[in-house]
Amino acid sequence: MNVIYSMETTKLYEEYQSHLQQVADIKYATAVLQWDQETYMPPKGANFRARQTATLSEWAHHLFTRESFKNLLLELNSRGDLDAGQKKNVELSWYDYSQQERLSASFVRAMSELVSKSYQSWLAARKQNSFAVFAPDLSKLLELKKQEADMLGYEGHPYNALLNQYERGATTGLLDRVFARLQAPLKELLGNIAAQPQVADDCLRQPFAKDQQWKFGMEVLRQMGFDFEAGRQDMSEHPFTTNFSSRDVRVTTRIHENDFTSMTWSCIHEGGHALYEQGLPEAAYGLPLGEFTSLSIHESQSRLWENNVGRSADGWRHFYPLAQQYFPAQLGPVAPDDFYRAINKVRPSLIRTEADELTYHFHVLTRYELEKQLLEGGLTVADIPGWWNEKYKALLNVEPPDDLHGCLQDVHWSHGSLGYFPTYSLGSFYAAQFFDAAGKQVPGLAAGIRKGNFQPLLDWLRINIHCHGRRWTSEELCERVTGEPLDIRFFMQYAHDKYKAIYRF
Amino acid sequence: MNVIYSMETTKLYEEYQSHLQQVADIKYATAVLQWDQETYMPPKGANFRARQTATLSEWAHHLFTRESFKNLLLELNSRGDLDAGQKKNVELSWYDYSQQERLSASFVRAMSELVSKSYQSWLAARKQNSFAVFAPDLSKLLELKKQEADMLGYEGHPYNALLNQYERGATTGLLDRVFARLQAPLKELLGNIAAQPQVADDCLRQPFAKDQQWKFGMEVLRQMGFDFEAGRQDMSEHPFTTNFSSRDVRVTTRIHENDFTSMTWSCIHEGGHALYEQGLPEAAYGLPLGEFTSLSIHESQSRLWENNVGRSADGWRHFYPLAQQYFPAQLGPVAPDDFYRAINKVRPSLIRTEADELTYHFHVLTRYELEKQLLEGGLTVADIPGWWNEKYKALLNVEPPDDLHGCLQDVHWSHGSLGYFPTYSLGSFYAAQFFDAAGKQVPGLAAGIRKGNFQPLLDWLRINIHCHGRRWTSEELCERVTGEPLDIRFFMQYAHDKYKAIYRF
Repeated sequence: MNVIYSMETTKLYEEYQSHLQQVADIKYATAVLQWDQETYMPPKGANFRARQTATLSEWAHHLFTRESFKNLLLELNSRGDLDAGQKKNVELSWYDYSQQERLSASFVRAMSELVSKSYQSWLAARKQNSFAVFAPDLSKLLELKKQEADMLGYEGHPYNALLNQYERGATTGLLDRVFARLQAPLKELLGNIAAQPQVADDCLRQPFAKDQQWKFGMEVLRQMGFDFEAGRQDMSEHPFTTNFSSRDVRVTTRIHENDFTSMTWSCIHEGGHALYEQGLPEAAYGLPLGEFTSLSIHESQSRLWENNVGRSADGWRHFYPLAQQYFPAQLGPVAPDDFYRAINKVRPSLIRTEADELTYHFHVLTRYELEKQLLEGGLTVADIPGWWNEKYKALLNVEPPDDLHGCLQDVHWSHGSLGYFPTYSLGSFYAAQFFDAAGKQVPGLAAGIRKGNFQPLLDWLRINIHCHGRRWTSEELCERVTGEPLDIRFFMQYAHDKYKAIYRF
Repeated sequence: MNVIYSMETTKLYEEYQSHLQQVADIKYATAVLQWDQETYMPPKGANFRARQTATLSEWAHHLFTRESFKNLLLELNSRGDLDAGQKKNVELSWYDYSQQERLSASFVRAMSELVSKSYQSWLAARKQNSFAVFAPDLSKLLELKKQEADMLGYEGHPYNALLNQYERGATTGLLDRVFARLQAPLKELLGNIAAQPQVADDCLRQPFAKDQQWKFGMEVLRQMGFDFEAGRQDMSEHPFTTNFSSRDVRVTTRIHENDFTSMTWSCIHEGGHALYEQGLPEAAYGLPLGEFTSLSIHESQSRLWENNVGRSADGWRHFYPLAQQYFPAQLGPVAPDDFYRAINKVRPSLIRTEADELTYHFHVLTRYELEKQLLEGGLTVADIPGWWNEKYKALLNVEPPDDLHGCLQDVHWSHGSLGYFPTYSLGSFYAAQFFDAAGKQVPGLAAGIRKGNFQPLLDWLRINIHCHGRRWTSEELCERVTGEPLDIRFFMQYAHDKYKAIYRF
């Protein structure tokens, strides 16, 4: 008879906790290797780094899925004397276990090695501005993702299996409905905007010295409440946030000399992600309750800061004088309202990360439909550039001049992330609903923001969202915080009010 | 019956290799975490980082020492059809195994956790300039090191067990003899120097802008032959070299605004270490033949570049005009010979890493004797500051004004490295002997160096030392390369010739 059956629940739970924390150690170590790979690693280090991260990933998978841990979970599940938090942890671990168990160790290793190589070939493809350089690795990745979907299992569309990894319970059915409900009112709003005179944004396309941009971005992060004792910012090809505990959260940014927007909003966006990670409960290190709810809720945090605060009239009432101090020659002569309208200019464009917050959702829709069809087999990797360019033409009426401005722009596929993009749109819709709730629940929130006091908002997010970790699903959390399920009317209302004022219709 | 007994040797050897390379993956991953810890990690990340590195160290130890690997090694040892290189790898792995087997997994974990904490308390102690802040962790470390010596086993002095980890076969007997043979002639040489007028080195203590120093150091590294596609330089509290494969070698430096020497020679020193790592055979990743010979041979490479090249008249014939270009205001007015004498000024001082290459060995002697006595129990951790200061007074006639300039100056103890310092002196002696041999074997070596052509020297080091990895012991390597065992007459001859010219006696 296995010894665990005669152990006290307290002891048993300690064992569970210690095991999960060891798995977390390895996962976070892997994250350090990946962070280094995208920030500082010299190019010739890539091959050995690929096998190092693969070895760690495989080990984490092995530890998490081993039989003895399964037995521990089953036994804990049967105990009646766990408290509510413990019960929730065990329940979520059991769910994770049953998902992970479906992936073989050899599959996990193959995926990890391929992902490291794919990232290098994606970088090389960008350097040579040629999707063909990336295509062979992407084809291999797609085959692995199909295998993954089959291993994980799904009802309906195979894409559901991948979606579910990022957003538990999400399906193509749900997304098709959301995008269908979005399209008509968003189209109408964009039509209203297009009928008005376009706003000028030349003021954002002047030379902004890189080191000044860096300093400004760091100051914005600091004022948002980012704790630099528990995190840092570096440079990378594509901005991202990662963390090695809630006490070591890393963001990255990129800087374009002739563009004020790229650095500024990547900084605020990643800062929003980072504030979420820094707000997760440190005591639950390695446990489900110490982890973020879902990708869409993570994204709601970045979007809320990026758009609802970071592109708001209230936010720039405070930040604009600061920006003018950093760039007196460039912004000194620009009136606050002109600047505010410029940073909210709506115009169909090529690069998702630099799109306005309205047309953005058509960028996501493109990727969502593309990924669905790649999974179905209706499209092959070789079809991507042509299909991409046609879709952008049809949806946004823009034509990518090359792959760099088209299907090579995002890092996600090189990471093996398919089914990820839709969570960006969901994130925006949650953000609008959360920000609406915060405005109703926190007296003087907007007035505080106008003065650069972001603490009440951060406190509200900490208490209502961050500190709960994975306790609730996205939908449950949304209902608890806002009193109702996700409804895109909040996003549409926000968008309508804001852009009516900006475009004056 | 175990399956390995019926396996073909080729298959068996592949299994051995694959296992060792997995161990290497984990060790290098740990090295990435440690590199990050000393370069970029935010302070609040320290606690979780400590447990992450501990988990990885424990796992590497576990994998390396597991029974099935032992059986694999025993079986391979019994096979007659290994080639010479394979035989050597297996033989060295068996030696490593039998060493590692003596340390329990719980000991390895305890050591790793304590080392991470100790590094933080050493940093805190330096910040507060108080050895007392570091002492509690150091006491715990010392206890663990005593346990370690007992577990490893030794003949004679317990210190031998620790020495042997860095320098196989080295003993207190050997070191006592080497230091005894060194002391009289070095004392005489220092006496001769002290009897002459002191050289001026004010030219080195001017304000040298940090970013210019950084650029100069990077250029020096590049010219030495450091491959920046397979490595990089960053900043840290204490300069060090680490690597995650021979294709990813990291050096760090520190910069003092009013001191030209600290950055420059730490850069050249770590550069020498890094060239060794970049020269190790990539194909032997994770295997003994892909590893460095010993710490003293590693140090011989850094010392050779730092002193025999980097403080030579020949070397600065080339580098001085470059330095003048970087610092025209500071060095433009300084004659080459005055500069050369300044960088070789001999004067007893407080900081080991900034000591001249002669009195340096008394810094090492102090640490060597101190560590020996700590191990014996003749001294306790609380005695260190007092003992240290007295010894510096007696040996070098200098008095540390505080712990920062005394017993808190080196990072080594905080890493758990006891028995490490003596390899620095051995390294200098090997360096002198190697450089003498290179001069005899490579036609036009000195003339090349005077023109900034370091490639012939690097080629000689690659062929004679780097590419052999751990194939020979330090002593064997020395005999093969120079035709005789280590003899400090090479160091003394070099020192005598050089300083006679500089101090004109």
